[in-house]
Amino acid sequence: MSIRIGIVGYGNLGRGAEYTIAQNDDMELRYIFTRRNPESIKPMTTGVEVVDIEDAKDYVNEIDVLMLCGGSATDLPVQTPDLAKLFNVVDSYDTHAKIPDHFAKTDEAAKSGGKTAIISVGWDPGVFSINRAMSEAILPYGNTYTFWGKGVSQGHSDALRRLDGVLDARQYTIPIESALDSVRSGVNPQLSTREKHKRVCFVVAEEGADLAVIENEIVTMPNYFADYDTTVHFISQDELVREHSGMPHGGFVIRGGKTGSGNLHNQIIEYSLKLDSNPEFTAGVMTAYARAAFRLNNEGAVGCKTVYDIPPAYISPKSAEELRKDYL
Amino acid sequence: MSIRIGIVGYGNLGRGAEYTIAQNDDMELRYIFTRRNPESIKPMTTGVEVVDIEDAKDYVNEIDVLMLCGGSATDLPVQTPDLAKLFNVVDSYDTHAKIPDHFAKTDEAAKSGGKTAIISVGWDPGVFSINRAMSEAILPYGNTYTFWGKGVSQGHSDALRRLDGVLDARQYTIPIESALDSVRSGVNPQLSTREKHKRVCFVVAEEGADLAVIENEIVTMPNYFADYDTTVHFISQDELVREHSGMPHGGFVIRGGKTGSGNLHNQIIEYSLKLDSNPEFTAGVMTAYARAAFRLNNEGAVGCKTVYDIPPAYISPKSAEELRKDYL
Repeated sequence: MSIRIGIVGYGNLGRGAEYTIAQNDDMELRYIFTRRNPESIKPMTTGVEVVDIEDAKDYVNEIDVLMLCGGSATDLPVQTPDLAKLFNVVDSYDTHAKIPDHFAKTDEAAKSGGKTAIISVGWDPGVFSINRAMSEAILPYGNTYTFWGKGVSQGHSDALRRLDGVLDARQYTIPIESALDSVRSGVNPQLSTREKHKRVCFVVAEEGADLAVIENEIVTMPNYFADYDTTVHFISQDELVREHSGMPHGGFVIRGGKTGSGNLHNQIIEYSLKLDSNPEFTAGVMTAYARAAFRLNNEGAVGCKTVYDIPPAYISPKSAEELRKDYL
Repeated sequence: MSIRIGIVGYGNLGRGAEYTIAQNDDMELRYIFTRRNPESIKPMTTGVEVVDIEDAKDYVNEIDVLMLCGGSATDLPVQTPDLAKLFNVVDSYDTHAKIPDHFAKTDEAAKSGGKTAIISVGWDPGVFSINRAMSEAILPYGNTYTFWGKGVSQGHSDALRRLDGVLDARQYTIPIESALDSVRSGVNPQLSTREKHKRVCFVVAEEGADLAVIENEIVTMPNYFADYDTTVHFISQDELVREHSGMPHGGFVIRGGKTGSGNLHNQIIEYSLKLDSNPEFTAGVMTAYARAAFRLNNEGAVGCKTVYDIPPAYISPKSAEELRKDYL
């Protein structure tokens, strides 16, 4: 019998989830819940029903796991605790500083309903988090470095679009190759913000706008750009759509550890992602952890979990015997 | 209170374990068990007692976890089941084809004694195994590639040393860069054995030996070298000792996955190791999993486990709260 999945929210992440669920033979997408008019959504998968999110509670017996595909700013802080009372859920909550609070609220909700919730599932937080903790446990002496990119930052692109005279924009975060090389060499460098990443902006300006003023506003913008070497390219809307419509991302978690006599042996662990589609990859991680949520709940492991609490076997469709025989 | 550790076997891996245990504040090395004359071993750590392996059973109340640092060919198939009746154990059993049998025997033994055993802990099997299974769970459509090296293969070096006219030798396995690049590009190539790795041999020959004969014997040796492009360098014993005494190793697990409409988006997960010391890294992984064995046994989770059964949090010295706050 398949694991019956519902998706909440049908933006980039929700559509990504629809693709990744279809890649898993032991799962079946049953419902898409939305705040929009359900009639306005046409799922790609046949047989999937689109339902108003307000009616989700009527479907508790039809769904094994809900994948919450809303945003971390306003959707998930409310939706995850609310829905974890009624359903096993997985979300990709990524406001790092507020994770403990989100965990506490979701834990209480999930326990009250006898459900299992796994929060902050994706790549960062998510598989990057696993690598940060495991690499340090394996190599206690050393430093861990996280680099992001090359990829599109939605928040920084939004900051550009809010400027006067800017019609549209796309911002790429790019790790600086010499910093990566330095980390990989095992010297465990101290790296400033500016030394780790650079920012490249593609901006569509209004006709007649003063480009020098816009460029200056960008490169001096506190928090977003001032601490980085930032390059601004003014391009046409056509070019932006043609060349910069994808959602690539990725990054690197590198542990430079030391072992042995005098701690003279360098031991480098590097985990990296190169993603053509950020939301589809995040959805893929969430889908695998939806399997874990289903299994954990069947075992009676209720409450809120993170990726740190999940054995690798629980996200795999393979049996324990298959894993030992073919993957170990 | 510290986790009290015993090491069984004091070769390269056992000495590596002595270093890595010392890097973990929540652990303490108490005993080294050996088949040699205990008086012949001088531990680096003060206060560590060296004991004949035959007397291990007298120390069941003095040790929380035994790290089994013997070899997979003859030591571990006997030692792990034997000792798992009496102690929580971690081993690095790496004969992939025989893991299911080793698991079954160890599981029965550990359950009979109410102990927890974690087998095949290291990098391959070990953290590479985790990445093979997790990457495929996250990206079900695609191929996984494992490359080894650049590193010293003990088995292949031994095969060289068994040849007539060879006094000493060292063999390096080296992944072929163009194959790595092809995999990273997302084209998911079919790669033959020869296309993935090459082998480089440094050989010290007896004086007067026919080098052409030795070289031909090497490059045509079935299983070991015949399927690879193999280069043979004849060097002096001095140079072998000076330049090739280290035990570097490493490798790559790369998943080339596809997602989205028409499966046209490439999603690449790459996990790599670059190790100055293979045994010290393996020991580091085993040490972290010794923590997990201790915790699992305290919770009553007895029997044999592998890395697939262990949540990341169990190998970390950090609390669940610290992990969520600082690492997620």
